Parts: sequence; C-alpha cells; structure tokens
Amino acid sequence: MYMDEITFRTDILTKLKKECASDDDVIEAMLVCSDKNIPDMTDSAKFGRINALMRERHGTPFEHNFLKFYSEAPIFVYREWHRHRIGVSINEQSGRYSELPPMFYIPPRERPLVKVEGTKQMDYISEDGGDELYEWLIEDLKEDCTDSYNRYLRRLERGVVKEVARIGLNLNIFSKMVWSCNARSLMAFLSLRTRREAMWVLDPNDPAKKYLENEEGAMFPSKPQWEIEVAANTLEEVFAAAMPMTHQAFIDNGRVCP
Amino acid sequence: MYMDEITFRTDILTKLKKECASDDDVIEAMLVCSDKNIPDMTDSAKFGRINALMRERHGTPFEHNFLKFYSEAPIFVYREWHRHRIGVSINEQSGRYSELPPMFYIPPRERPLVKVEGTKQMDYISEDGGDELYEWLIEDLKEDCTDSYNRYLRRLERGVVKEVARIGLNLNIFSKMVWSCNARSLMAFLSLRTRREAMWVLDPNDPAKKYLENEEGAMFPSKPQWEIEVAANTLEEVFAAAMPMTHQAFIDNGRVCP
Amino acid sequence: MYMDEITFRTDILTKLKKECASDDDVIEAMLVCSDKNIPDMTDSAKFGRINALMRERHGTPFEHNFLKFYSEAPIFVYREWHRHRIGVSINEQSGRYSELPPMFYIPPRERPLVKVEGTKQMDYISEDGGDELYEWLIEDLKEDCTDSYNRYLRRLERGVVKEVARIGLNLNIFSKMVWSCNARSLMAFLSLRTRREAMWVLDPNDPAKKYLENEEGAMFPSKPQWEIEVAANTLEEVFAAAMPMTHQAFIDNGRVCP
Amino acid sequence: MYMDEITFRTDILTKLKKECASDDDVIEAMLVCSDKNIPDMTDSAKFGRINALMRERHGTPFEHNFLKFYSEAPIFVYREWHRHRIGVSINEQSGRYSELPPMFYIPPRERPLVKVEGTKQMDYISEDGGDELYEWLIEDLKEDCTDSYNRYLRRLERGVVKEVARIGLNLNIFSKMVWSCNARSLMAFLSLRTRREAMWVLDPNDPAKKYLENEEGAMFPSKPQWEIEVAANTLEEVFAAAMPMTHQAFIDNGRVCP
Repeated sequence: MYMDEITFRTDILTKLKKECASDDDVIEAMLVCSDKNIPDMTDSAKFGRINALMRERHGTPFEHNFLKFYSEAPIFVYREWHRHRIGVSINEQSGRYSELPPMFYIPPRERPLVKVEGTKQMDYISEDGGDELYEWLIEDLKEDCTDSYNRYLRRLERGVVKEVARIGLNLNIFSKMVWSCNARSLMAFLSLRTRREAMWVLDPNDPAKKYLENEEGAMFPSKPQWEIEVAANTLEEVFAAAMPMTHQAFIDNGRVCP
Repeated sequence: MYMDEITFRTDILTKLKKECASDDDVIEAMLVCSDKNIPDMTDSAKFGRINALMRERHGTPFEHNFLKFYSEAPIFVYREWHRHRIGVSINEQSGRYSELPPMFYIPPRERPLVKVEGTKQMDYISEDGGDELYEWLIEDLKEDCTDSYNRYLRRLERGVVKEVARIGLNLNIFSKMVWSCNARSLMAFLSLRTRREAMWVLDPNDPAKKYLENEEGAMFPSKPQWEIEVAANTLEEVFAAAMPMTHQAFIDNGRVCP
Repeated sequence: MYMDEITFRTDILTKLKKECASDDDVIEAMLVCSDKNIPDMTDSAKFGRINALMRERHGTPFEHNFLKFYSEAPIFVYREWHRHRIGVSINEQSGRYSELPPMFYIPPRERPLVKVEGTKQMDYISEDGGDELYEWLIEDLKEDCTDSYNRYLRRLERGVVKEVARIGLNLNIFSKMVWSCNARSLMAFLSLRTRREAMWVLDPNDPAKKYLENEEGAMFPSKPQWEIEVAANTLEEVFAAAMPMTHQAFIDNGRVCP
Repeated sequence: MYMDEITFRTDILTKLKKECASDDDVIEAMLVCSDKNIPDMTDSAKFGRINALMRERHGTPFEHNFLKFYSEAPIFVYREWHRHRIGVSINEQSGRYSELPPMFYIPPRERPLVKVEGTKQMDYISEDGGDELYEWLIEDLKEDCTDSYNRYLRRLERGVVKEVARIGLNLNIFSKMVWSCNARSLMAFLSLRTRREAMWVLDPNDPAKKYLENEEGAMFPSKPQWEIEVAANTLEEVFAAAMPMTHQAFIDNGRVCP
C-alpha cells in the first residue's frame, strides 16, 4: 500500500565531517616533541621516517589524529563495520527510538552477483550474472522489502512498540551512523575491508627487503564483501588526502596496519 | 513453499562453555600475590575487600578471570550485544560463508508489546497488548519471515552468492555466537542490559554512604530491550554462581560497573 | 661532578597541542545527524540533552572528539597515567634511544608531605610537614638524583648501552609524552585522578534524583597522588574550555564518567 | 646502613597462575559451534584450519581463551610491558600503599652490555663488554641502589609519605604484577618482545606463498630490550605448551599477530 514511497538506493554514503589529521602529527608523536620544537625536515626526510615506522610496525605514532565520518548504509554493512572495536567510536540510529524511514539498498548493476566457477568458497570471488538475473533480483528484493516495510507500518499502526515492530525488517534497510577513528584504526579497517591479493617479491640483493609488484597488491590477502569495500574506498580517499605520506607508506609496505 | 520447515523460536539461548573465574581471583589480583602466598582470610574478610573495591570503583582486579558462552539469538539482539567493545571477544556465524538455517524469533506470549500510555518514549515501558494483538502479530511475523526466507532460497537457487542473497532476510533470523568476557566487562554489560530503576537512599547517619532500598534497584537507571535482557539474565546467573561475592557486591553497590 | 648542570623542577607541564572538540559534536553523535541537518536548538535545550546523556550514562556520544596534549612529567607520574588503556594514545620519550637529560622532579613547598594522624592508609590524606622536613627532603632528593645521574653518565662514558645505563636512574627523572584522548576517556581519567570526596544528597521530593551539595564533591570518592592531580587539573581546564556544557554536566552529575 | 639486607637479582620471574586455553578453543570459535557439536577432525585438519586463520590474519578466533601470569620484574621492564593496552589486564604492586622491599635487578653476566660498532642505534645490537666492565657495572649499580634505598628508608623514618619517599628509588627496583591475556594479545606481545630478524623467502612456484628460511626468523623485525625478552620467552613457552598448534602456526607464518 505504501509502495510508491519506498526509496531504493544503490549507493553507500560515507562523508568526512571533521578531521584533525596530518603527516606532521605522526612525526611529532614519533619524536615526542612539543609544537615549539618540530625539527626542520624535508618532505623526503619526513617520508623516510614515516616509512620506517610503517615497515617495522611501530603503530602508536599513527594514533594521534582524528577523522570523523557520517555514513548512510544498510544494516548488513554495519554488521561487518561494527566488528572493529579498537580505536573507533560508533553512534548509529536507533530503531527502538525512531521509526525507520522506507529506504532500502539494492545492488547496482556493476555489483558481481554469481560465484566464479572453480574458485574456493572462502575466496568470495564473484562475477557478473547477466542482465536477466540482475533484473529479476532487483524486482525480487523490491517486493521483499516493500512487503516487509508495509507489515512494519501495520504493526506500528496497531500499537506494537517500535522495538518489536522492526524485527521483521530486512537486513538491507538503511541506517545511519557517526563513526570516528584515527589513522591506525583506519588502516586496520582498510587492510581488511578493501579487496587485495597477496602480490609481492623479495629484493634479490637483500632478502630482508620486500617490494610489491605494483600498488594493487598487499602482503596479506583480504576478501571483504563488495558493499563494505565501497565505504572503505571512500574512507581511503579521505585518508590519502589528509595524510598523503602515511597513506603512501601504507601502500608501499603492503597495506599492513602498523 | 518451504514454510513447513521453518522453525519459529520464542527463546534466546545463552549457555556457559568454559569458565576460569572465582572470587579468589579478585583477591589475588588486588593483593598482587602469587598462588603461593594468598593470605588466610575469612569469607567475611574477603567480601569486605571485594565490596570496598566495588564501592570505590577499583575495576582492574575484576578483570583477571574468564567466562566463555555459546549463544543463539536473533540478529537484532546481536546488533545491541556487539556494541560492547572492550574486554569482550566475539565470533558469529557468517552469512557470507554458510547458508543461514530457517529459524526465526517470535516474541513469547509474556513479552509486553504496547507502550504504556503517559510514559516517555525514552523510558521504553511497555505492557501486555492482549491475546488478539499477540496472535495477529505472530501470524504477521510468520508470514513475513516465511516469504523472505523462501525468496532467500530462490535467490540461492538462481545462483546469487550467499552474501547478496541474504540481504533481504529479516532482522529476527537466528544467528549464533561464541562470546567471551571477564567479570568487569560482564558487569558493564549487565549494568546496561538488565532493566532497573534508580532506587536508593542515603544513610541518615553518614551522608557519604548510600544504600539501595532493595535488591531490585540500581544507582543508574537502565532500559534495555526485553530480548537482550533475557540473555543478560542468564549471563548474570552464571556470573552469580561463579563469583558469588563479586556478584553480591555488584548488587549491593547499585549495579555500577567498577 | 656534573651537579651544576642538573635541573630540579617543581612543576608538571601539560599543554594542549591540538583539539577538535565541541559540545555540538556530542549533539551530532547523539542525534546521528550529518552536518547538514543539525537541528536548531537553544543552548538550554542542548545542555538538557547533554545532561540527560551524562545522567543516564550514555557514553558513546562523548567519544566523537579529539584532544592532543604535550606533557613533561616525572616517570612515577607516567607510571600511573599509563594505566589508562582505553580511548587514549601514548608516545613517550625512549630511554633506549636517547640520552635522558638531567632534569628531575622535586615537590614544591605546598605539596603535603606527612600522613594526617588518625586517617586510614588507603585514604592517602597528607598535610604539611614543616619547613625543616621540606628542606631536608629537597636536599636529600637532590643528592640522590645527582649521584644517580652522574653514575648514569659514567656508565655511558664506559660504553654501556643506554638501555642498561639508565636502569639506575631515579623514578623522579623527567620524561615527555604526547597523549591523545576524547571527552569520554578524559572523563574516566578525571574521575579517578582528581581528588574528590563523595558528597551528595537526595532530593526529598523525588528519591530518584540526587544532587551534589556543592561542586566540590563527587558521587564516588577518588584519592589520586598529588602530582598526577596537577596534570589532571590542567587537562580539566582545557576540557572545560573546549566543551563547557559537557564539563558542567560532568560536574553536576557527580563526576561519573558516562 | 641497611646494605646487607638488599637483594640483587639477575632473574625475571614469570609463572603461569591459571590457564583456560587450548587449540580446540580456536576451532570452536572459528566454527561458532556449541560444545555439543564440535566436528570430528584429525589433528592435521585442525592444524590446517588454524594455520589458514593465522596466514590470512583472521584474529578473533584466537581471543576465546585465557592465560593468567604472576610476575616479578624491575620497573623499567614493566614500563615497556604496560604499553600493551588491548586484550590484557594488569595489577601491579602499589608503592603508594606498601613499602617497597629492598630488591633490585642487576644484569646477569650473559647480558650484552656494549653496542656493536658499525650497527645502527635503532637496531639495538649489543655484545659482551668483558669481565672488567661487567664487574665495574655491577658494583656501580649496587652502590647506586643501596644509597637510594637507604635514603628511601630515611625518608620514611622522618615521616614522609610513601608516595613521596619512593620517588628517588631506581628504575631497577623490583615490583610484582598479575597479568592476564589471551592468545591473540599474547601473540601481539611476542611479535614485538622477542628479538627476530626478518628472514623469509618466496615460493618460486607460487609468489603468493612465502616461507621462513628457518624457525628463527620473522616476517617483521623486532628489537626488544634484552630483559623484557626474558619474560617474553617464558610467556612463549607456556603458550606453546597450552596451544601447540596455534604456536606452531604463529612461527610458520613469520610471527605475525593475526
């Protein structure tokens, strides 16, 4: 009955609200220096110091900074997001307190939908399933969510409290969140929530040194769900803009959180 | 089509798997003594020491112990449960990896369903809504979940990967979890996830001392959702059995996590 | 031999380096709103909301902000400071890497030095011990530190590595630190590291309400060492300036970290 | 004056007090299974699962276990130990509450004392400095500590409160601690607090696979102070005995905390 009002979104919103983060914050913490006596260093010297911290996994100097985000995403994405416990702060909309608006996530056309034959289940490698499957799935999800949302409204109309009425809602209903982190907790998130294969080589002249074949690889593989990677990619862009040397050192050292 | 196979449960399962927790662990940590030199103390002396720690909020001695639980609960309960980040460990069934079984939560008959008129929204006080409302709700939820679950199965049949197929499932589908904590992180959980009103009085002879009017009250009010309190009550029973003095001191001091 | 060069300080330095913290950050997190739709609220309405969060111990909205400090303090102060583990970041000068400068803490004249007779050991209540005791103590500490520091230099001269040479240094040698926190972790620190007695009364008209007799009291007693309270008082001034409503609500509700 | 009573120790004591930890705890958490339905697996299958978790850095299944230790160590060691904040619990003897016993750490004869020429400062590589230097150092430390400890006693005799009297004591005075952790937080500790060089090779047939040249190496270098490594080695022995498969997988994968 309320079908016309329901919004189906294919995007996941992640935007910076506030930041207090720079590469100099890392240098200051590493050298434990007050704001009066930051040494005069070239950018190249700064990058060298940041890179050494990253390579040898000295993590604490990357914590003295702050990034706050506003996000809109479906609940199944937040379920994964909230598993990150350390160095992050979370406030999410409450379905006990407020009536949840009729807004649901559906995959965009480019989202791979079917498993690639011959790949392992645990590798979560999927590919396009064709137009027909996509269109059927979207229609199916729309019917599913529309029916559940209308049932939600009817429960509320009959006086059922919000915290019970909502339990039949679908995992792809949108919620919203304020999320704060620092560069270290963010790198932990990015190392797990952006998809990368393990691709690297040793330096033939120095077996203690390792290099990535290219910027696309990582020292450890990561196989996140497509949707949380959408959020992670936006977080990473913000991070790269705020702390370009730190971000570059993160990539160069195989996306290992220090 | 698969309706007959769907299980609707009104319970939330929480059971102890392993424990390594006693009141003596608190005494040992407080006195920082090795297992060779625990002083000879009466139970009354032990309770006095534990009670003083609790009253003055010395929290760390309550951390040196371990309780591991296995739980089966609907996802909307785990969403609240997982907001506890510190001193807890979480492993939950993955809907990316495994097909979720057809098992959904429906409220038992005693679960209050309608808001008590005149109470504030933020107090979340509800009461029985009568047989008719209850029966309608249960029927409505069963139809809702049956429809969504069958759509889930059809998506899987058509080759949609599990991580996408599941996004239309309802928030009351059952999941399962292994959860570990210690007495301190558990008291933080219990102080928020069992419903209590603030009810206490001052000692007329000593205004620095306060007493609860009875064991039902707390120093700070807490207004959890009914379902997570079901889990919390079981956790509290296990806690009381393992660490009876610590639990009694928790109650006597108004259920404030130290 | 190096005695003339040794600096004896009676102060503990704590200064703000960066902040990204306001009362509006609390409101935004509580309402989970993006920067576009912060509601138009009076200051009085804002304080009411912040006060309700504090009173009922909803802690997470107080985490979405950032305060970074530079500090210079003796090691025995940092030993207490570093027991705070959650929501804080720490980088301290390394005595393995750098030669520690000859700078030691001595108590200023106003620091109480002797136990008040009749008080309990655990209450740590001390009073002035007179000029003679003070002067003797300062002289004694100066000799103690001068001797140990000169031995430190001799060890270095003879080639002993820094990490070994330093182990004979005194606990009152100065170190320096960069420390970051948020309002929630800072309130946890302040609730324990500023000295307060438990002083509060119930509202005779409503036993669920409690009031402090005055701003000097707290709901729970705290008995920190004098020196860390010096640092805590500076932290609290910065906090009060950055987030005046949050700080006022913290005081009004008995200095309980939410 | 009290010199004869002072104890100089060359050891660092670390002993297990309680454990609730096994490789099966990892399997159970990974499979999120109750104690009734642990699958029948061979040891080889179990190791394969544990190894895969370690290799791909799935960390949470390693948290559902518990190890509690009693330790006696000098303060400069605890200063490093306490930098570990997550997944650990700490209670240490209080120098405010109790008079510290006359017990100090001196390096044993095998402890390298001088920097190896040509090595970088940050690599902290030291070697034996000869008998003469060792004997001089021990004598020097004994005089240093004896003098400072006797001054401590005199301050107490003159009525100075313990928390002030102790500030002149040396960083090598012994303290004691109860410390609890789980396998994950312990591996984080071990990866940083045991000395290893980065030594590993790629599989020529599969560049995504890497192997250590031998069990002595690690994927990331670590350069702890000698004394904390003594404690770490004991912790590692206990860990290896309690969870042999987990420990082996930790070594095989280059001592990277998952």
